[in-house]
Amino acid sequence: MKLAEIYKEFQTDIEYIESILERTLSAEHPVLNEASTDLLKAGGKRIRPVLVLLAGKFGNYDLEKLKHIAASLELIHMGSLVHDDVIDNASLRRGNETVMARWDNRVAMYTGDYIFGHAIETTKAFQDKRVHVIISDAMHQMCLGEVEQIRDQYNWDQTIRTYFRRIKRKTALLIAVSSQLGAIAANVEEELQQQMYYFAYFLGMSYQIMDDILDFVGTKEQLGKPAGGDLRQGNVTLPALYAMDTNPSFKEKLRKELTKDTAKMITMEPFLNDVRNSGGIEYAQDLSDRYLSKAYALLNEFPNCEAKTHLKQVAAYIGRRKY
Amino acid sequence: MKLAEIYKEFQTDIEYIESILERTLSAEHPVLNEASTDLLKAGGKRIRPVLVLLAGKFGNYDLEKLKHIAASLELIHMGSLVHDDVIDNASLRRGNETVMARWDNRVAMYTGDYIFGHAIETTKAFQDKRVHVIISDAMHQMCLGEVEQIRDQYNWDQTIRTYFRRIKRKTALLIAVSSQLGAIAANVEEELQQQMYYFAYFLGMSYQIMDDILDFVGTKEQLGKPAGGDLRQGNVTLPALYAMDTNPSFKEKLRKELTKDTAKMITMEPFLNDVRNSGGIEYAQDLSDRYLSKAYALLNEFPNCEAKTHLKQVAAYIGRRKY
Repeated sequence: MKLAEIYKEFQTDIEYIESILERTLSAEHPVLNEASTDLLKAGGKRIRPVLVLLAGKFGNYDLEKLKHIAASLELIHMGSLVHDDVIDNASLRRGNETVMARWDNRVAMYTGDYIFGHAIETTKAFQDKRVHVIISDAMHQMCLGEVEQIRDQYNWDQTIRTYFRRIKRKTALLIAVSSQLGAIAANVEEELQQQMYYFAYFLGMSYQIMDDILDFVGTKEQLGKPAGGDLRQGNVTLPALYAMDTNPSFKEKLRKELTKDTAKMITMEPFLNDVRNSGGIEYAQDLSDRYLSKAYALLNEFPNCEAKTHLKQVAAYIGRRKY
Repeated sequence: MKLAEIYKEFQTDIEYIESILERTLSAEHPVLNEASTDLLKAGGKRIRPVLVLLAGKFGNYDLEKLKHIAASLELIHMGSLVHDDVIDNASLRRGNETVMARWDNRVAMYTGDYIFGHAIETTKAFQDKRVHVIISDAMHQMCLGEVEQIRDQYNWDQTIRTYFRRIKRKTALLIAVSSQLGAIAANVEEELQQQMYYFAYFLGMSYQIMDDILDFVGTKEQLGKPAGGDLRQGNVTLPALYAMDTNPSFKEKLRKELTKDTAKMITMEPFLNDVRNSGGIEYAQDLSDRYLSKAYALLNEFPNCEAKTHLKQVAAYIGRRKY
């Protein structure tokens, strides 16, 4: 099942959020306008808005309240993608040239700032102080994650613990608060708000580990960019960490051969094969599955309703996705 | 009178804010740590924290409440300076190499993000929802101002109105809300909160126009960078706008000779002299003075107290400053 099919049931509401994003990001400035439009057209799974809406279905579903939260979270996510591409020196995302590649770091910086500015503007509509605190915290953690990512690039001695902290900050927290904030805005009871937070947190961890696996096993068509980009950019993810831990000579090879300076011209295939043959993919897959099981376990406790079925479908999609 | 002397009276409180900024920006990551420390050591006038504290003196002065607001506003300001240097391709600020020049655009981007992240984190401590809304709005306006600055660079056809909107967004609003938020946090009565907002807004406009004048008339020693940087970077300010409006051939000369491509090698002195001889300096000085008079007029209505005297000193400093 594709995510689009799961979304069918509340297509109208998703399209409403999409139209808000479009309106918000339309800019007078031509470069900015093109960059933002490209980002919107490239799509993306809109997982954060979907989780906001689905969580809202467990309480007093009020789209007019939820839309601000959904738009704000998606904008934070979009802004962070543009800045991430600068950090990673990434030229392709979802099959499209990145802002940084099409223009330069400077344009990517201000496009990201512009999107963040709108994300912050959108938070003004929140009535509840808690919502501000939660979003502020998520943005702060994302900035810290960005810094950690830079610090850890091409650091072959980092630990699995570092990796988990980083993906938590960079991905899982924003996904977790999407679900939590939808629940808060819908006045869902406090215990369920917490459970929704952890459900989406586990989902986010599972999702990111899967994403990191796909960068080793996906095809160029599936990924919208060549495989091995993470490793080439010095982003050390779980499969690579496992391969290094179990095979010190692989680690030495990386340390010697893959540096910021060699990264652009080096052939990645041998490195990717080393990781693929190390058992690192299976190890990471197992951890991703475990997070997913935790998410399912929590989800089972949720009150039965149509939204619960949809959340199960989203979780199943994440468990099975191949791109 | 130097600003430091005006500050003497509440030196301890300013130093407390300074120590918070230092603690907040100390990072594990070496480049980031150096970049942040450089920024802190370079100083700056800390006008925003000072206005927060002085406004607070008109009500229930509670440093523990005010410190979060003061730190957050100064961090937003600092983060925006780092990103501005990328926009302006500026290599010197206050006599020191900018982050962008010492490292590159990428480092400047993430240093700014890191500082913004901490600014947002600091807002979490605010109890009052209004404070969140006001700060969010100021951040959003600053991002829009950044975009306008980029859009208007090397645009010799822009109007004085464009200029005023830009400096409002980029400078005056953050200064205005510094004073307003200090008043809100101290439970100053609503009318005075509003007056404080406008007082500081006028002060901010006067300040920025003066800053733009100094870029034409200041010495390298006074400015901490060569004169004419604004024009070279394509930032069209009030004195230049006046010179172009009154002398179409100067405008044509700029259009023909000063472009993004020629900017790096061109000799600025002839252009600067054209502006200096156009009456543009006097015109801008007059407008700066008028804003200052408006600030004074409002200030006179404030209740008499020691803080009022200090605010007058700050205003006088801004009116007379030469660097």
